[in-house]
Amino acid sequence: MRELDRIVKEIADEMRRRTDRGEVATYIPELACADQQAFGLAVVDTDGHIAAAGDSDTPFSIQSISKVFTLTLALGKVGDRLWQRVGREPSGSPFNSIVQLEFERGKPRNPFINAGAIAVTDTILSGHQPREVLGELLRFIQFLADDTSITIDEAVAASEQRTGFRNIALANYMKAFGVIENPADFTLGVYFHHCAIAMSCRQLAMAARFLAHSGRNPDTGLSVVSPERARRINAIMLMCGHYDGSGEFAYRVGLPGKSGVGGGILAIAPAKASIAVWSPGLDASGNSRLGRIALEMLTQRLGWSIFGV
Amino acid sequence: MRELDRIVKEIADEMRRRTDRGEVATYIPELACADQQAFGLAVVDTDGHIAAAGDSDTPFSIQSISKVFTLTLALGKVGDRLWQRVGREPSGSPFNSIVQLEFERGKPRNPFINAGAIAVTDTILSGHQPREVLGELLRFIQFLADDTSITIDEAVAASEQRTGFRNIALANYMKAFGVIENPADFTLGVYFHHCAIAMSCRQLAMAARFLAHSGRNPDTGLSVVSPERARRINAIMLMCGHYDGSGEFAYRVGLPGKSGVGGGILAIAPAKASIAVWSPGLDASGNSRLGRIALEMLTQRLGWSIFGV
Amino acid sequence: MRELDRIVKEIADEMRRRTDRGEVATYIPELACADQQAFGLAVVDTDGHIAAAGDSDTPFSIQSISKVFTLTLALGKVGDRLWQRVGREPSGSPFNSIVQLEFERGKPRNPFINAGAIAVTDTILSGHQPREVLGELLRFIQFLADDTSITIDEAVAASEQRTGFRNIALANYMKAFGVIENPADFTLGVYFHHCAIAMSCRQLAMAARFLAHSGRNPDTGLSVVSPERARRINAIMLMCGHYDGSGEFAYRVGLPGKSGVGGGILAIAPAKASIAVWSPGLDASGNSRLGRIALEMLTQRLGWSIFGV
Amino acid sequence: MRELDRIVKEIADEMRRRTDRGEVATYIPELACADQQAFGLAVVDTDGHIAAAGDSDTPFSIQSISKVFTLTLALGKVGDRLWQRVGREPSGSPFNSIVQLEFERGKPRNPFINAGAIAVTDTILSGHQPREVLGELLRFIQFLADDTSITIDEAVAASEQRTGFRNIALANYMKAFGVIENPADFTLGVYFHHCAIAMSCRQLAMAARFLAHSGRNPDTGLSVVSPERARRINAIMLMCGHYDGSGEFAYRVGLPGKSGVGGGILAIAPAKASIAVWSPGLDASGNSRLGRIALEMLTQRLGWSIFGV
Repeated sequence: MRELDRIVKEIADEMRRRTDRGEVATYIPELACADQQAFGLAVVDTDGHIAAAGDSDTPFSIQSISKVFTLTLALGKVGDRLWQRVGREPSGSPFNSIVQLEFERGKPRNPFINAGAIAVTDTILSGHQPREVLGELLRFIQFLADDTSITIDEAVAASEQRTGFRNIALANYMKAFGVIENPADFTLGVYFHHCAIAMSCRQLAMAARFLAHSGRNPDTGLSVVSPERARRINAIMLMCGHYDGSGEFAYRVGLPGKSGVGGGILAIAPAKASIAVWSPGLDASGNSRLGRIALEMLTQRLGWSIFGV
Repeated sequence: MRELDRIVKEIADEMRRRTDRGEVATYIPELACADQQAFGLAVVDTDGHIAAAGDSDTPFSIQSISKVFTLTLALGKVGDRLWQRVGREPSGSPFNSIVQLEFERGKPRNPFINAGAIAVTDTILSGHQPREVLGELLRFIQFLADDTSITIDEAVAASEQRTGFRNIALANYMKAFGVIENPADFTLGVYFHHCAIAMSCRQLAMAARFLAHSGRNPDTGLSVVSPERARRINAIMLMCGHYDGSGEFAYRVGLPGKSGVGGGILAIAPAKASIAVWSPGLDASGNSRLGRIALEMLTQRLGWSIFGV
Repeated sequence: MRELDRIVKEIADEMRRRTDRGEVATYIPELACADQQAFGLAVVDTDGHIAAAGDSDTPFSIQSISKVFTLTLALGKVGDRLWQRVGREPSGSPFNSIVQLEFERGKPRNPFINAGAIAVTDTILSGHQPREVLGELLRFIQFLADDTSITIDEAVAASEQRTGFRNIALANYMKAFGVIENPADFTLGVYFHHCAIAMSCRQLAMAARFLAHSGRNPDTGLSVVSPERARRINAIMLMCGHYDGSGEFAYRVGLPGKSGVGGGILAIAPAKASIAVWSPGLDASGNSRLGRIALEMLTQRLGWSIFGV
Repeated sequence: MRELDRIVKEIADEMRRRTDRGEVATYIPELACADQQAFGLAVVDTDGHIAAAGDSDTPFSIQSISKVFTLTLALGKVGDRLWQRVGREPSGSPFNSIVQLEFERGKPRNPFINAGAIAVTDTILSGHQPREVLGELLRFIQFLADDTSITIDEAVAASEQRTGFRNIALANYMKAFGVIENPADFTLGVYFHHCAIAMSCRQLAMAARFLAHSGRNPDTGLSVVSPERARRINAIMLMCGHYDGSGEFAYRVGLPGKSGVGGGILAIAPAKASIAVWSPGLDASGNSRLGRIALEMLTQRLGWSIFGV
């Protein structure tokens, strides 16, 4: 048994036993059904070897982790023009804050807070039909993960569409400033649906390999993005991937990462591995509590922090 | 000639020629005298080799870069209790903002915005005489740089003491919440003086070697801080080292760094090198304009970004 | 000729000649058509005498002035329970700010900023059909003005419904906090339509007589609200009736008043008169520029300021 | 016995019995000694008749009520140029907030929040010696009250000078923007001392008669300010006199008023009376709890609200 497999297994075992699991998100009613006891972890290294443990094959709602893929797709479509609409600085505010938007005339701070991700979604939509764009996004993720079984959980999408009033507010607020160009309903429809994509830890870690390997799929050698763009997406993940808990994640884990309120976290160890972890209980900033702790143990034991050995 | 020497020289030459040099800070009158044409760069690698070019031996006012050393010293004195007084999240605000302090009851967001650095200084002061504490801090930096010629520029300190009204406001505001424990004048006296330390790029890069090498001086093998603490200081530098331009620095340079309004930037390439650059012209966020561009070229050419090759 | 008639005529004449007329609002496209040269003034005194001059019989879009009538109606329906949903303090912010809502968990500061008026509208709606509620509100205003010819300008309502993204944002944001109870579309439909009521200065001054006369229609003696409630509505008008220009209006005019972006202002001289003025050009706070100046001249010459002779 | 005397006595008797007296301010240590059971009320009507009851002859620390007199003095010295430094809008924020100052580049919203009063004090100081200016201000108040026994409570002034860190912060913050022109220590010295003036309800009501009588002392007929200025000072008192409780005071009491954390409130019934009330227990906005209730009863019973009978 490889050391990586052993470490992944040990961490999963320890996480299973912990009782301080955080609170499952309830603001999207459908997410409240998630099993608080669930824990999954999957690591894909440079050789393509997958170390996985716990519920690593159970699909969960990736929620905001999807923003990494929509950002990648949007940069592919419009390049650096994207940054005219969205900034790249940490917001210092909770994920759904609207205050910064008023002070900065509708331009969201970064692509990983809700407002920014809605603006990125609007860029992809760009006059097309929501259904087409969603299809394209889903196929892109299936292609990255090399797994056509990945789908959108329509019940989660419908649940958020019924209750996502803050997101509706954010979209309309940006529309007042011209930052959203499509009908707000269309943009939000795509946004709610891509947040509702369901993936397992294994699928997620597979899909994000290109970020750990200079923009390429290490299996096929196919380039997804340029090495520079991969680095830059990683930089934005580190700075902004955990809302107002981003500093804490960098301080403790030391890897670029993106969390979702479904309890998943995607993390990238550049030139080493792509990692996905899932545990539905959240901390006060809305990030998976055990997920973050598991990643802290993993980087500690493997010496994978980008900030030094 | 080594490749590193060649690259450093080429970058310095190119920077010398550029005309878009930013504006020299004027808010501390004494700093306004700095030579806008100056440019220095020094890199100390793992072997202890120093590649330097331009005005790399000219001392300049390190200003906020000193916050890296006061943070290190404070952590050595009080350990993680420091985090009861200061946060570790990016602020999303300019360096001298007071708004966040009001909303968060006097607790600064991180040790690298002015309010946070004043609180860190107050922790070191802790009932001692300002003169003693300043002496200790200066000796610590001299020890790290292995250079006893480093001094405080009293004219700069006096200039800021006469005009630093926003910092006086910040200190008193925190004092109202009990975050500052010493007389505000004492704490500010130490703060203004440690910001007025003058160092050359060479001295600065030497002093920060421990952050690139798991907390140790790579020459002597002596431990300054634990490996974990070195990583964590690097993480805070990356997240918060450039105020509301921190995201931009991470995106473009991809290294932990700390800037000062004197035009210096300290950057760390973990396990690779300690880097100092100096050019007095600043961008809109108060960070050295050419300094940041030079670092971007350096990491690009050497493949030193922590976010991937 | 009475002195009041003479003064009203002189002011209207002077206003006609002025060239510093402010800018006509363009954010609701349909309002941009208003004639910048228009000026109307009507004063109804305690005897029921109407002094009117200029375009005092031309209907204009009363916009936010309608909030006085919806507030009156809502207080009639739910009494002081209204204040659980809406505050009574000046906001210190522009009319369409959303910042305060985030800091105060969705509870608007007062019934005269947009968010507060939407919440008041939601209270009136309370499960009924938008069409019914609008009919009731229109009949209430017709009854107060004793004029059944008052109507809603459907083109203006439709124009705002198409472009009122900030109001849609405000409504959905409050809905996220449970402050809005009806479907946001329904509440906004009523809100946009009651803002689109068209009235002339004469009709408006007539409709508001009860506020100047202890809650009674001075012609018929019929009580609309209690004397205490009339005083309190006047107090809220003074404190909050001109958004972040409320202090300026109190300082210069010295009467409770409510402005609308259509260029109208309603003002109350308690125990003396009900006053309506209209001029479409606005100042920086979104209040009628000449309207405010005309009212300042009127109170000055008549000694009607509530702050002393 | 006049009706006014009877009503004043009845209100004082009722207030004596109430047990919901609010909390005595503790943030200035010396104020914490105030007797929570104390209650005083004094009303001076147009005839110069004084109706007084309770502890109406006990001096108390007038604190922010002094801002009415410094504003009057400053307007006398520099006229409308004062408004270049200080606004006239309600702030929507607590009395000691610094947030608004940052957003509005150091210009306080109005002369009655702490920042604004410090800026007004700075205007009066204008290069003179603090001692001289304080002497002038004290003589002005003695002249208005026709009582040379009024003094400054040095223990209170010293207490605030030792602990007034937020005010020190505000002064230095404004100094950074050039809004404060004198050394901050000088301006604050005068500010802390004029806040520490001790007056009884009777003295206070006497001193403010000019505001109720078109700017004149009704006894002597001497003009203190023009009628227009008296009205405008009243307007600012109504809009801004009770910090973020100003709307509540207007809604319930319906008179221009200014409160102090010593538990005093000065209120003006234009053309009718000058009123002072004192009870040290405060509500959440820092205004005298029983003081406000007593004034509400008084205006209700006498029909003195400026918003109608």
